[in-house]
Amino acid sequence: MKPLSNITNHLYGQPMFELLTMAKELERKGKSITHFEIGDPNFDAPQEVKDAVQNALDQNMTHYTNSNGLLYCREAVQRFITREYGFTPELNQILICPANAVIDFVIRCVANPCDGVLYPDPGFPTYHSSILYNGMTPYPYSLNEKDNWNIIPAELNELITPFTKLLIINSPHNPTGSVLPMQTIETLYDIATIKDLYLLSDEVYFKILYDKVKHCSPSIFDKCMKRVILLGSFSKIFAMSGFRLGYVIGPPKLIEKMNLLLQTIISCLPPFIQYAGAQLLDTPDIYNKLIDDRNNRLQLRRDTLVSSLNKITPKVFNCKNPKGSFYSFINIEKTGLTSNEYAKRLLEKTGVCVLPGDCFGDKGQGYIRYCFASQSNDTIKEAIDRVQIFHNELRKEKI
Amino acid sequence: MKPLSNITNHLYGQPMFELLTMAKELERKGKSITHFEIGDPNFDAPQEVKDAVQNALDQNMTHYTNSNGLLYCREAVQRFITREYGFTPELNQILICPANAVIDFVIRCVANPCDGVLYPDPGFPTYHSSILYNGMTPYPYSLNEKDNWNIIPAELNELITPFTKLLIINSPHNPTGSVLPMQTIETLYDIATIKDLYLLSDEVYFKILYDKVKHCSPSIFDKCMKRVILLGSFSKIFAMSGFRLGYVIGPPKLIEKMNLLLQTIISCLPPFIQYAGAQLLDTPDIYNKLIDDRNNRLQLRRDTLVSSLNKITPKVFNCKNPKGSFYSFINIEKTGLTSNEYAKRLLEKTGVCVLPGDCFGDKGQGYIRYCFASQSNDTIKEAIDRVQIFHNELRKEKI
Repeated sequence: MKPLSNITNHLYGQPMFELLTMAKELERKGKSITHFEIGDPNFDAPQEVKDAVQNALDQNMTHYTNSNGLLYCREAVQRFITREYGFTPELNQILICPANAVIDFVIRCVANPCDGVLYPDPGFPTYHSSILYNGMTPYPYSLNEKDNWNIIPAELNELITPFTKLLIINSPHNPTGSVLPMQTIETLYDIATIKDLYLLSDEVYFKILYDKVKHCSPSIFDKCMKRVILLGSFSKIFAMSGFRLGYVIGPPKLIEKMNLLLQTIISCLPPFIQYAGAQLLDTPDIYNKLIDDRNNRLQLRRDTLVSSLNKITPKVFNCKNPKGSFYSFINIEKTGLTSNEYAKRLLEKTGVCVLPGDCFGDKGQGYIRYCFASQSNDTIKEAIDRVQIFHNELRKEKI
Repeated sequence: MKPLSNITNHLYGQPMFELLTMAKELERKGKSITHFEIGDPNFDAPQEVKDAVQNALDQNMTHYTNSNGLLYCREAVQRFITREYGFTPELNQILICPANAVIDFVIRCVANPCDGVLYPDPGFPTYHSSILYNGMTPYPYSLNEKDNWNIIPAELNELITPFTKLLIINSPHNPTGSVLPMQTIETLYDIATIKDLYLLSDEVYFKILYDKVKHCSPSIFDKCMKRVILLGSFSKIFAMSGFRLGYVIGPPKLIEKMNLLLQTIISCLPPFIQYAGAQLLDTPDIYNKLIDDRNNRLQLRRDTLVSSLNKITPKVFNCKNPKGSFYSFINIEKTGLTSNEYAKRLLEKTGVCVLPGDCFGDKGQGYIRYCFASQSNDTIKEAIDRVQIFHNELRKEKI
């Protein structure tokens, strides 16, 4: 057969694949694995959402709908953004679309092959994957532990060339849990304005915050009319990862083109899912209570994870509490192991599955990521007891 | 702002947009519209499927799943293909994916920009849209009424160049309702073999057949191990268009790459939808009864539509019964109007909404498409009475 197309040589999928295969292999052999690797809360989807899906199916909302989304769903997003962000996007600025597809569609509609795209390193792997397979030039900007994983705008600014088209930011941040302060966001918006860049703000964790930290968004500066593109999702904040429901607010012309791309590739999203999501957005009492309750539980899990890791002897960890999202990005350099060696050996010895930090970019080397949303508080305690035993063994090896 | 990317200049979406906008405008003004334009049966989704979705939601199948599909769903597709096609694909040949995305992913994974792709004209618009925006070279092959819309392999063969990578065929065919005989399929497979092309066989209507016509598929020749890619969907045969559920069987290496593309763009399909689809495939009694019942009703609608149109005076139509799918592609050349003029004026005068044939390619000029699945038999009768009045007026104009 003739070879497959060139893009197939640049499709990497999820770089954590090797470790996940190993975990599954161990599970098949009967080993009990404690999963901290997937960014998926172990909460159930809201009962109200499940009921609304059933209601929509009973009403036979099972046919094609508009590719840009059910009008009712777009209106619900409009009301939601108005309440949560304080500005009201026009309906032609709103597209209902899974969050991963939003990232891919924005990159493809804004940048030509070889154009530059800036994105965080460490950062959510889809940015890098989508840039690479589409042939754009990746410009990862570094986040560092010493800066509390904050973006240093001056450093980012130096990476910009005349061919840079798009800046991607993500706050609260995966995998580090950092939350960008308003001052940084403002400076980044100014840079985007001066350099005439589109600014994709990935805010899929925007309601998952601790210690009374506040969420800030560049969307308020231009109301997504010109350069800011606001990405949201139901997956993380409502524990609805399997529904594949998200939304994007952006400049009308860009949204029009992204809608044509969605129409060509996906046609539309299931109307009964959109209906259920819209119902949830339209009942702030329910989702606020839901989010408060879950954030309290997540904060407890976070505190347990971080304090337990910091207690491990000999003292190798000096973890700080992440301010948002549900990840802890842990420095393991003192162990002398690479991220991958550490994660593999931890999994083999203890059944605790974490992700090597370099899955999130070169700057993640020397770190591992725990998702503390995926296990109960008790399980986290028990798992870190096993991590202690692992470190005891590591120590013995060295002696 | 800097201009959007080049692909945004080649995104056309659905060419029927102008007419749909007009229909919606008329509806807003209170005019009653009879819709024959969308390829969406007016049947409800099977109750068993809706129940299975609820069941899956109750079991909290609401989290991420494998990007290539729930194992249970892929196994159900494997059993379904075994029963329906007589060969058993390996699990690594099966990807659960919406049908439109399959078309886009196959084109992108097989052809580089500028490579040639062969597809039917008239034909399903996504072939053309996806080829164009991705920068491949479109090679539409003509289907003609005089040949009963059959493919003439010798003509198609002449279009092949050393840069042709993919041949797309579609039987039963949208928009003409033709069904390719085994001899044609065999010849096309031979051509694909000699010229070393991938062969995407779009069989989303494969169970919708009339007059005891049999479905033939090139998949049986190489069991989708080498060059044949078999595309199926739940949308048409089970009236589940809003579920966005489809499957593709293909060579393992291609499926692996398409899975990475799906992983990057969509992550995965909702597990509760996959579960419900799999349950339906696993109950042949139920879906066979469902399909028999619906095909009987569709055949009645088809007969009513075709015979009513042929009775219109003065005699302008000489329609034949389509053998499969649920479309009639009607020659309107005797009216002296273009497809678009005819469709617009018919809509304005009578509220009957049909699609201009050139939405499906240049060779569709002079035709209109009725989807007879979207209205009941009585409504079809009543609508064609209005079409008669329209033709009376057309005649008066000419006198």
